[in-house]
Amino acid sequence: MQRVELKESVSYSRIIHGMWRLGDWNLTPQETLAFIESCLEKGITTFDHADIYGGYTCEGLFGNALELKPSLRDQMEIVTKTGIKLTGDFNKGQKLNHYDTTKDHIISQVERSLQELKTDYIDTLLIHRPDPLMNPDEVAEAFTSLKESGKVKTFGVSNHLPSQQRLLQSRLPFSLVTNQLELSPMELKHFEDGSVDLCYENNMPLMAWSPLAGGRLFSEDRYADLRSKLAELQEKYETSGIDVIVYAWLLKHPATIMPIVGSGKIDRVQAAVDALDVALTREEWFEVLKAARGRDVD
Amino acid sequence: MQRVELKESVSYSRIIHGMWRLGDWNLTPQETLAFIESCLEKGITTFDHADIYGGYTCEGLFGNALELKPSLRDQMEIVTKTGIKLTGDFNKGQKLNHYDTTKDHIISQVERSLQELKTDYIDTLLIHRPDPLMNPDEVAEAFTSLKESGKVKTFGVSNHLPSQQRLLQSRLPFSLVTNQLELSPMELKHFEDGSVDLCYENNMPLMAWSPLAGGRLFSEDRYADLRSKLAELQEKYETSGIDVIVYAWLLKHPATIMPIVGSGKIDRVQAAVDALDVALTREEWFEVLKAARGRDVD
Amino acid sequence: MQRVELKESVSYSRIIHGMWRLGDWNLTPQETLAFIESCLEKGITTFDHADIYGGYTCEGLFGNALELKPSLRDQMEIVTKTGIKLTGDFNKGQKLNHYDTTKDHIISQVERSLQELKTDYIDTLLIHRPDPLMNPDEVAEAFTSLKESGKVKTFGVSNHLPSQQRLLQSRLPFSLVTNQLELSPMELKHFEDGSVDLCYENNMPLMAWSPLAGGRLFSEDRYADLRSKLAELQEKYETSGIDVIVYAWLLKHPATIMPIVGSGKIDRVQAAVDALDVALTREEWFEVLKAARGRDVD
Repeated sequence: MQRVELKESVSYSRIIHGMWRLGDWNLTPQETLAFIESCLEKGITTFDHADIYGGYTCEGLFGNALELKPSLRDQMEIVTKTGIKLTGDFNKGQKLNHYDTTKDHIISQVERSLQELKTDYIDTLLIHRPDPLMNPDEVAEAFTSLKESGKVKTFGVSNHLPSQQRLLQSRLPFSLVTNQLELSPMELKHFEDGSVDLCYENNMPLMAWSPLAGGRLFSEDRYADLRSKLAELQEKYETSGIDVIVYAWLLKHPATIMPIVGSGKIDRVQAAVDALDVALTREEWFEVLKAARGRDVD
Repeated sequence: MQRVELKESVSYSRIIHGMWRLGDWNLTPQETLAFIESCLEKGITTFDHADIYGGYTCEGLFGNALELKPSLRDQMEIVTKTGIKLTGDFNKGQKLNHYDTTKDHIISQVERSLQELKTDYIDTLLIHRPDPLMNPDEVAEAFTSLKESGKVKTFGVSNHLPSQQRLLQSRLPFSLVTNQLELSPMELKHFEDGSVDLCYENNMPLMAWSPLAGGRLFSEDRYADLRSKLAELQEKYETSGIDVIVYAWLLKHPATIMPIVGSGKIDRVQAAVDALDVALTREEWFEVLKAARGRDVD
Repeated sequence: MQRVELKESVSYSRIIHGMWRLGDWNLTPQETLAFIESCLEKGITTFDHADIYGGYTCEGLFGNALELKPSLRDQMEIVTKTGIKLTGDFNKGQKLNHYDTTKDHIISQVERSLQELKTDYIDTLLIHRPDPLMNPDEVAEAFTSLKESGKVKTFGVSNHLPSQQRLLQSRLPFSLVTNQLELSPMELKHFEDGSVDLCYENNMPLMAWSPLAGGRLFSEDRYADLRSKLAELQEKYETSGIDVIVYAWLLKHPATIMPIVGSGKIDRVQAAVDALDVALTREEWFEVLKAARGRDVD
C-alpha cells in the first residue's frame, strides 16, 4: 500500500483504520487481534484512537489484543488524541463535557494511553478539538517533554481552523504533522474555509474522519442524488459499493487525504483499500461534487 | 494590581476604566477627579478614551479633572482612539457618520486629544474601526510622525479583523500593541473568527469592550440561562454580583484579556477588581460558555 | 491615462477593457479593429480575455482584428485566463462544466490562446476560478515553463480567496501580480473577507469584474436607493451617467482597483475614462457605501 511520509520521522499507510467504535463490536482480545492482523495484511498499518473513544475504553481493548502479540507494535503506527474530558465514571463529579489542554492533562492522558495501549510510544498525538482556553505555550511544553522522553514521536491537531493551527504552531519548535478533519462529499466546509488549503500549503497530509458521514450517506434523503451518482460510478468501476467511490474521491485530492475507515467489517475495510485502484477522472470528481452540492461550479 | 507589559515601552493595569459615558454622569471636575483617584487607588491606572466619546466631549471632561492635579498624569496610562467622524456640531455640514484614517485627520485629532486631555502624550492610540478606505502607508506615516514627536508612545487597533490588522501591521516599522474588541460571553464571535487567535499568536494582549454587553446582560430574556449560571457561581464565590463572574471569565482566558469597565459607580468598578481574586475552574469556564451558547462543546 | 506598474515587468492602463461579450456585438474584423483603436486612443491599453469567453470564440474574434494591424500588439497588454472547461462543441463528450488546472490543460490552452489572439505572448495569465483539485506544484511547473519560453510574462488569479491565493503563491518562484475579483458597490463581500486586504498587503493591484453588476445596477429594484445617490453625485460632477460615479468609487479605493469595462459602446467605455477625473470626497464614498448596504457605518 502507498505510504505517506511526514516531514517528521513517521510514515502512515494511505488508508487508516479508526478504532472509535471498537467497544461496540463485542470482540474477544483474540478476535480483535485477528482483526488488526487482517488490517496489517492489507497494508493498513496506521490505527487511529482517542483517549475518550468508547467512554475511555477503546484504547484498552486494542492494547489487550496487542498484548497477545507484542511484535506487531513495530509493524504499525498508533495515532491517539487527547484534549476532551467527558462526564461519566472516568471523571467522577464532572458536570459537563469540556476541553482540557493543560500540560498536566495532556501528559497524564498520554501516560494512560500508553498503559491502555500496552505500548511505550505513540506515533502521533493529536489535540482532539480546538480548546478556546488553550495556552499554546503550555501545550508546547507538554509536547516537547513527551517528544524528548520518546513517549510521542510526532504531534498534530484535529478539527482545528487555520487561525487555531497557526497559533499552536507558532509556539512549537517542530512542525505539526497533520490535521484530522471531517472531510467527505457530505462535509465540504473545510475545503472552503482555508483548513485544507493551509495544510496543503504547509505540506501536511490530512486525515479524513467520517468519510461516509457516519453511515448517513446510505440512509438520509438529502443524499439521494449523491447516491445515484456514486452508484453510476460504482457500476463503471465495478466496485463492491458506493463507499469505494467516496474513498476514491477523497484519495484523488492532491493535498493527500488519508481516509479513516471505522468499520469492524473487514469487507468494508477492503472497500477503502480497493479505492486505491480506482482512478476517478477529473470530470467524475466534479460530478460527485455537483451531486453533493446540488449545483454546478461557477 | 496585576500589570500587563507590552512589547513596546508601556504597561497597562489588568483592569481598564472606559470613559465613554463620562459625559452622562454630570460630575464636576472635582467629582471627576475624585472618581479618577478612586480608580488609581484600586490599581486601575489605564483609562480608555476616544475622540468621539460623548459627542467629542469626554476627553475634555477628563482633562478638566486632570488639570486640577497634573501630577496624576505620571500615575496613569491614557488610551484614546480616532478614525470615526460623527455628524453634529463638531463637524458642521457633514451629512453622515463615516471613517477617516487619513494622515491629516489622525494627526489633527491627536493634537486635539492632547489639548482636551490636558496632557502632552498619549500612551496608546487606536484606530477606532477598520476603515474600508484605509491607506496603511498613510497611517504608518501618521503613526511614525506621532511616535517620533513623542506625542504617542504606542499604537493599536480596535474592532479589526485579522486581515485588516495584518494589512496595517505590514506597513509599520513597530508592532501594534493591542486590538480592542467586543469580547464577552454575550459576544463570542471574535473567539471564533481568528481575531483573538492572531493577537495571541503575536503576543498582543486584548482589550474587551462592553464586557457586560452594555448592561443588556442584566435585562434581556435571551440571557436568562446565562444569568442563572452566573448567579450560581456568584453564590459559590460570594461575589457582589454576576458581573464579577463575567470579568473573571474574561480574565481566565490565557490570551490576556483586559476588561474595560465603563461604570461610573465605584462599587461596579470594584466588581472588576474583585474578579482578579476569583479563579474559576476550567469546568466552570465551560459551564458559562455552555450557558451563553446554549449548547455543549462538540 | 494613469498606468499601474506591477512588481513584475508589466504595466496596465488604469481602466481595462473586458472582451467577454465581444461575440455578441456582431462586428466585422474591421469594426473590431476600429473599436480596439478607439480604446487605445483613450489610453485603455489593457484587454481582458478568457479562453472560454463567448463559448471559446472571443479570443479568436479579437485576434482576427489584431491580424489586420499587427503593429498594435506592442501598444497593448493582453490578459487572458484558463482553468474552466465548458461543455459544448469545444469539449465534445464532456458532461458538465468543471475546472482544470492541470499542467497539460494550462499549457495547451495558452498555446491555443496565442493562436486565437494572433500573438506570440500573453502579458498576464490568470487562473480563472479556484479549483478545489488544484495541485499548486503542477500549476507552478506550468507557469514556470510558460514564463521561461516567453509565452506568458506574468501570472495572477481570479476569484481566489486568501487561503487559495496563499497556497498557489507558496509554490511559485515569482509573485502573482493580480487577483481579478467581482468588486462594486453591488458586490462588497471581497472588501470584507480579506481578499482585498491580502492583495493590498502584497502590493498586488486588483482588477474589478462586473463593476456595474452586469447591468443589473440599472434595472433591479434593490438598487433604487443606490441609484438615487449615484444620480445625485452624477448631477454634482456633471457626468454622463451614474456608471461614471461607480467607476470613480472603485478608483478612489487606495488598494488600486482597475475597473474592467465590458461595454461595446464607446461612450460607455468613455464613462470609465471620465471617472479618472472625478475625485469623490471621502464622505461621498461613504454615502455610496451606505446607499449600497442600506446602513450606516458602525
